[in-house]
Amino acid sequence: MARVLTPQAEDFPRWYQDVLAKAELAENGPVRGTMVIRPYGYALWERMQSEVDDRIKAAGARNAYFPLFIPESYLKREAQHVEGFSPELAVVTIGGGKELEEPVVVRPTSETIINASFAKWVQSYRDLPMLINQWANVVRWEMRPRLLLRTTEFLWQEGHTAHATEQDARDYAVRILRDVYEDFMVDVLALPVVVGRKTARERFAGATNTMTLELMTGDGKALQMGTSHELGQNFARAFDINFLTPSGEREFAWQTSWGSSTRMVGGLIMAHGDDAGLRVPPRLAPTQVAIIVVKAEATEAAARLSDELSSEGIRVELDDRADVPFGRRAVDWELKGVPLRVEVGPRDLAEDRVTLVRRLGGGKTPTPLAGVLDAVRVALVEDQVALYADAERARDARIVDVKTVDDAVEAAATGWARLPWSELGTEGEARLAERSVTVRCLVRADGSLPETGDEPDVLAYCARAY
Amino acid sequence: MARVLTPQAEDFPRWYQDVLAKAELAENGPVRGTMVIRPYGYALWERMQSEVDDRIKAAGARNAYFPLFIPESYLKREAQHVEGFSPELAVVTIGGGKELEEPVVVRPTSETIINASFAKWVQSYRDLPMLINQWANVVRWEMRPRLLLRTTEFLWQEGHTAHATEQDARDYAVRILRDVYEDFMVDVLALPVVVGRKTARERFAGATNTMTLELMTGDGKALQMGTSHELGQNFARAFDINFLTPSGEREFAWQTSWGSSTRMVGGLIMAHGDDAGLRVPPRLAPTQVAIIVVKAEATEAAARLSDELSSEGIRVELDDRADVPFGRRAVDWELKGVPLRVEVGPRDLAEDRVTLVRRLGGGKTPTPLAGVLDAVRVALVEDQVALYADAERARDARIVDVKTVDDAVEAAATGWARLPWSELGTEGEARLAERSVTVRCLVRADGSLPETGDEPDVLAYCARAY
Repeated sequence: MARVLTPQAEDFPRWYQDVLAKAELAENGPVRGTMVIRPYGYALWERMQSEVDDRIKAAGARNAYFPLFIPESYLKREAQHVEGFSPELAVVTIGGGKELEEPVVVRPTSETIINASFAKWVQSYRDLPMLINQWANVVRWEMRPRLLLRTTEFLWQEGHTAHATEQDARDYAVRILRDVYEDFMVDVLALPVVVGRKTARERFAGATNTMTLELMTGDGKALQMGTSHELGQNFARAFDINFLTPSGEREFAWQTSWGSSTRMVGGLIMAHGDDAGLRVPPRLAPTQVAIIVVKAEATEAAARLSDELSSEGIRVELDDRADVPFGRRAVDWELKGVPLRVEVGPRDLAEDRVTLVRRLGGGKTPTPLAGVLDAVRVALVEDQVALYADAERARDARIVDVKTVDDAVEAAATGWARLPWSELGTEGEARLAERSVTVRCLVRADGSLPETGDEPDVLAYCARAY
Repeated sequence: MARVLTPQAEDFPRWYQDVLAKAELAENGPVRGTMVIRPYGYALWERMQSEVDDRIKAAGARNAYFPLFIPESYLKREAQHVEGFSPELAVVTIGGGKELEEPVVVRPTSETIINASFAKWVQSYRDLPMLINQWANVVRWEMRPRLLLRTTEFLWQEGHTAHATEQDARDYAVRILRDVYEDFMVDVLALPVVVGRKTARERFAGATNTMTLELMTGDGKALQMGTSHELGQNFARAFDINFLTPSGEREFAWQTSWGSSTRMVGGLIMAHGDDAGLRVPPRLAPTQVAIIVVKAEATEAAARLSDELSSEGIRVELDDRADVPFGRRAVDWELKGVPLRVEVGPRDLAEDRVTLVRRLGGGKTPTPLAGVLDAVRVALVEDQVALYADAERARDARIVDVKTVDDAVEAAATGWARLPWSELGTEGEARLAERSVTVRCLVRADGSLPETGDEPDVLAYCARAY
């Protein structure tokens, strides 16, 4: 069979580009760093949106929408924030045919403009907590773009909250990290993310604490899949978000922000993909089962089966393109990573059966027509679990415990290095950075989150990152 | 009771501003013409998105995403298109700290950038029809902004399709107009839109035919709620979208585009609102029933009722803020236009009943606890129908059949004028325009769509427009 994709072992970045093109996921836009998300790539994103949105709403936040354009002066109100984002800004200087008096920035993130609204909306402790989320596009001018992973424009959700106490803000930032992001990534994306705390060096510009979910990609690098920040009172001071306490005093609010983006689509591809293409976890898959008409005379039976599975809540697509060679279509469904194929051909039908093909493992099982629904249900559950186990095994096999900076750099050539933060420290971190290795996060030995950046006995996960 | 809103009859635009503020729907952003859509306004939009998206998918189109930034040169490829949009563009001249070699335009609409992709994706007749939709923000620099109706940035969906024949493109543009937009606006929004064809003067920049859905607002003006365009081969020529026919020739594709936006939220408010606030049709309502705890001791019973209705698929919100005065909460739910309130108080509960209050008509009905579910179901159905009938009655009462331009201008002071297009003509249309009255659309006497712009016996609907 002709080679469809560059093998991962030969050239992983090339494999990634091949998958994006062949599975029709995304391509470059005309302006440097921008991307077109094609329908199948977007269908993956829509499923992610739906699952994340449900969890965000369950955590009590409500969606709203804030302007794309931010006055340049707003960005400057929080010193670290403007310093962090200035080099990446896109600036509109002409509007309606005229030079603007004050240039406007295309949002790189919305802390400033949302907090300007919070300053109006938050008056009393009764208004707190204020829990807002927005689905939007943001722009960060990107010098080394990579489709879906790092693009000048990307799609994301960004949550912004205000609380009466530091503890309440902290608890909420952790709740989002665990109940929204980790739950979604583990249970739906089947991705064994490592959840930890960023070092001061890697913190979000303007935050007092950044927590992160780090994914190991198929080539042993790290990808930051989502972050949840405590902002302390930094933005509350900059935008004067204060509230009347029950005892009649005025206090600044405590805040959080948190985000996840279309980068998750890239992470999904990079962690689960293999040499035949994507492997999409059943719970996420826009199409869980492709029902393939092998020859035209099987169309009616295939359509009946498709209706039967659909009516049971399974996401099915009927491929009745009998005029396209069967082999080409089979390769296409493999490329797209659809968990199950049901091949419906006249020879099988004569014996009242079809052939069930699993993307995971590739096993082909002749299945009686009456047993398809049950077989599909079982396979979808099994393969969700198996994909997670696969990714976890691959991850754990590539995490190496080391003691020195040199050993960490060596380990990061093919995987992640893990070492005690007390032995590395900010000085070791700087030396790693010179060699393009970063501390992805700090985690306690028992997997829980450190309360501060200099807790003893925490482990640092170090890797090259996308 | 204190006056919450300026009465409509006193000052309609002021009433509109009052509703937006008091019902917490939307407010101005810091950059001129931009808006913040607050959670309740956004919840209305999310429900609209969900209903429109279902219908778009049922019509066979798939969602995708294209870049916000368009090279300036792209806009110039279609002559009428660039002429139409040039005065409204926002232009990014600085990116990543540097002056850009070619400025980029923030999309005012995406025909150009999407068709650049279509040119790559469409090769053979087998690739047609290509049916794509995108949910996105767009920017048109607005000199006289009005929240939700005409803003510098707004949210919308825009569909873009390519077809093998002119007839197929035409049929699809009509299908979207009728099966997506009209069906949604009539059945879900309960709005009696007038569906017709735009005159050449009012056509979309680059289209060969624009069809529209026009709404009468509470002050007798017109609001364009959605449009569906035939683009002929204009963009296909400009972007070289050609395909191989079955007989081996190369032909340019025939195209359509169509859109609906957050303006629909404004239309909903302006057509259904009354002096007490919004009136949201039950099928749209994010909250169909507000269950109000009159006094704290009724909380448990109210929560049980809330769970019961929720589990039956009714969208319920429990208002258990027993420490906020009951009257203020009742006014708030009225303002927000929630179709039904169920007031749960200890005195009623002692007799195993609650009080059902309808936003439409304001009737209060003591209802036995065991009968609430049925009563709610009936009221939701009845009030959906009644809202449509109300709006239709109000619309028809304000449409005046006239014969002359002067009479049309006079009628347009308080409503719409209707007259034969053959008597008005492009010259009469120009004279109307001098007096701020436009031809909203052309419709055949039987309500069907004219096939051309100069068909005899078509009626012109004329009005002042938002």
